[in-house]
Amino acid sequence: MEIEHVLPQDIERRSMEIIDEELGEITIAPEKLAVVKRVIHTSADFEYARTLRFSGGAVASGLAALQQGCTIVTDTNMACTGINQGALHTLGCRKVCFMADVDVAAAAKAAGTTRAAAAMRKAAALAGPLIVAVGNAPTALFSLAELIDSGAVAPALVIAVPVGFVNVVQAKERIMACSVPYITAVGRKGGSNIAAAICNALLYTLTGGRRP
Amino acid sequence: MEIEHVLPQDIERRSMEIIDEELGEITIAPEKLAVVKRVIHTSADFEYARTLRFSGGAVASGLAALQQGCTIVTDTNMACTGINQGALHTLGCRKVCFMADVDVAAAAKAAGTTRAAAAMRKAAALAGPLIVAVGNAPTALFSLAELIDSGAVAPALVIAVPVGFVNVVQAKERIMACSVPYITAVGRKGGSNIAAAICNALLYTLTGGRRP
Repeated sequence: MEIEHVLPQDIERRSMEIIDEELGEITIAPEKLAVVKRVIHTSADFEYARTLRFSGGAVASGLAALQQGCTIVTDTNMACTGINQGALHTLGCRKVCFMADVDVAAAAKAAGTTRAAAAMRKAAALAGPLIVAVGNAPTALFSLAELIDSGAVAPALVIAVPVGFVNVVQAKERIMACSVPYITAVGRKGGSNIAAAICNALLYTLTGGRRP
Repeated sequence: MEIEHVLPQDIERRSMEIIDEELGEITIAPEKLAVVKRVIHTSADFEYARTLRFSGGAVASGLAALQQGCTIVTDTNMACTGINQGALHTLGCRKVCFMADVDVAAAAKAAGTTRAAAAMRKAAALAGPLIVAVGNAPTALFSLAELIDSGAVAPALVIAVPVGFVNVVQAKERIMACSVPYITAVGRKGGSNIAAAICNALLYTLTGGRRP
């Protein structure tokens, strides 16, 4: 295959053109398009055009939280690292991951649960608007669903894209049954990269596509 | 779907059993199996069973480098974050990513190239055995291929799994034409998560599957 001559600053624009071309006749609602395209850009996997699911108003709720200087909580340091710090800073938002915290490890051990589940309990105590982005642990979603059902936390948006084979499909179904704005990818697929990509799609919508 | 009752410490084992079951009749050489399964574990994408390509002796070369206390260089902070620090520490290895370095940004600007390409030039100057893991930027692979061809660097292993639509397929073809041990995924797919997963598969092979 011949190398395509594209300037570094034009690679992303050209990538998005190719994605548009290959999405072809698939109809995606305008408010979802930025998220769907960025997830495909991150994964080269067009299956997400079919599997991404949005609750009504999910994107608007996420954007409003970002405009209010929310905190994004992730269940992996990898997802946290992948969220664009420059865009967060511009909007006065922050990102946190509690997975490596000593108190979370202790709480998980005491409760016989995973650190991911304990990390969600810690997140529920944060002040201010919250976006929770889960790219790895179904147990984080089950824990979060309980906290939402009990009224202990009311995230502006749950990005529910754990990946894997054990209870991943079930955890996504559980969150979709909660009274909370969500973006998920039905099925087994997802990941820290997908969680970060969805956060970045929302961030870039507000910062005019600016990336560092 | 019913929730499957699996203890936290058994989730990974159960996931690998499911992957084994679903791989079914596909024959994968024993030395490649740990890498293929961990990539599928990370992505829930069985396409990788077909698309992962290994040069002869690539796994052995990567394992030997890790046993010699090598440096793993990545092209994204996200991939770097995803590589298991506990396992690296056990083996006396380290991981680095130069993408955010001020000198790399300056070198890229001066040369009219990407930071990823400039970061590879910086990596080529490192002492000791080297594994280079590229999960994002095809320009990093093109730069690395030139450095390999000119004899400026001789990595023990190149993990070549950039993802995307512009020159990604070509960059993988370019590395496969180099005289260097490689693991790649032909086609557009890959990513920082895949790059980290391949590193971790090799690490866990040496640490007996131990994860923190």
